Amino acid sequence: MISKSIEKYVNSLKQKKYRIEEGHYIAEGEKIAEELLHSDQVISKLIATRDWFSANERLQRRKNMKVIEATEQEMKRISGLVRPSNVLLVVAIPPVEVDEQVVLKNLSLVLDGISDPGNLGTIVRIADWFGIPYIFCSEDSADAYNPKVVQASMGSIARVKVTEMPLADLFRRFPSMPVYATALEGESIYNATLSKSAFIVIGNEARGISEHISPFVTRVLTIPKSGGAESLNAAVAAGIVCAMFRKD
Amino acid sequence: MISKSIEKYVNSLKQKKYRIEEGHYIAEGEKIAEELLHSDQVISKLIATRDWFSANERLQRRKNMKVIEATEQEMKRISGLVRPSNVLLVVAIPPVEVDEQVVLKNLSLVLDGISDPGNLGTIVRIADWFGIPYIFCSEDSADAYNPKVVQASMGSIARVKVTEMPLADLFRRFPSMPVYATALEGESIYNATLSKSAFIVIGNEARGISEHISPFVTRVLTIPKSGGAESLNAAVAAGIVCAMFRKD
Repeated sequence: MISKSIEKYVNSLKQKKYRIEEGHYIAEGEKIAEELLHSDQVISKLIATRDWFSANERLQRRKNMKVIEATEQEMKRISGLVRPSNVLLVVAIPPVEVDEQVVLKNLSLVLDGISDPGNLGTIVRIADWFGIPYIFCSEDSADAYNPKVVQASMGSIARVKVTEMPLADLFRRFPSMPVYATALEGESIYNATLSKSAFIVIGNEARGISEHISPFVTRVLTIPKSGGAESLNAAVAAGIVCAMFRKD
Repeated sequence: MISKSIEKYVNSLKQKKYRIEEGHYIAEGEKIAEELLHSDQVISKLIATRDWFSANERLQRRKNMKVIEATEQEMKRISGLVRPSNVLLVVAIPPVEVDEQVVLKNLSLVLDGISDPGNLGTIVRIADWFGIPYIFCSEDSADAYNPKVVQASMGSIARVKVTEMPLADLFRRFPSMPVYATALEGESIYNATLSKSAFIVIGNEARGISEHISPFVTRVLTIPKSGGAESLNAAVAAGIVCAMFRKD
């Protein structure tokens, strides 16, 4: 049974303010729960229905994790999904330490005001697919631990290090790193020679790259267009750019 | 003012059954309305607030289009969006005639059970970006005129021809066309020589390519993975595949 105080606590974590205060976020759904329970993330609560527990006996054991059985009705009251899942975790937001050597040897994604949580989650999943260890988000980006981001990341949020910081500080800290951005006009990404280690900036869905970020960009790439659409979805563009960086 | 019968009619078009019966769909939002009003689509109703009309005087004139001014309250009652827009169109679903010569000379996307309307709309936008004229959808795919698809397509639904049919019939009709599909294991898309005209099959979000479609696939490609994610979002994968086909 879920107590009133647990119900209130879990629901509070749907708001960024309380996630920051409490240092925890919620992750729902069988696939994501399975991935997180197999990861090294710190999970403070596992809330699930009897059916889930019967089907997942092996997954339940963990130190310092409070295990709570809930009815379907109770799951509905804490779920953020249209179709409530039968399992929900409360997970500690991991501290992100930026290992400079890792950044210098890899591609990193830099999100300049990605505001749609679905796009952000999809981009986390792309980074995970391509083995990109870090995502740096501007402070006006969606919050990486928003339940919709966690959902769209399909568990990848447990493997990719996502951190928020003023992007100008990031670029100043790594002055030797090339900074690529995509725009409607630029060098065709199909012919460009691309670095193995670089920052790849993905601009906001509507306004693109911010003015104060542009001076840091060392190369502007474009995905050549041959049809009528004005733009590509930000996550789709991110996926295409990552694939092009990996192709050689 | 919106009459009760118009309100009922517009709301009925949120369901596929009534869209098929009436042969019309709804499109909301300033950007999409602007694109549609500039296109050759047949628009039967333009419903908007006074503010929208004052700002868009030039866009209003069209033959056989009923123009209705609505209050914000009234827009709320017909909108399908969380934040109701100030303009909504009722648009005729265009008949799709498959021009065999066009199909034979181009890439076409073939969607095998894409069930998420957001993904379908994003794929329509990708096709439009890359100048892909046709999208063929299996009968268990999301409906192309679902309001969420229209929304995610960002106006591209007016330029790309999307049609539903049994996919086996499509492949039998074009026996000489190569049929590409992506899977977790296959030939790396980075090194593959790709045709300029082909069918590109995008599988369902969870189960991939259907069993009855597999025999028609002539080449299986994979987007090489170097990280932990189990899969890529279907629209992201579609975007990467299209870019790779266009790159040479």
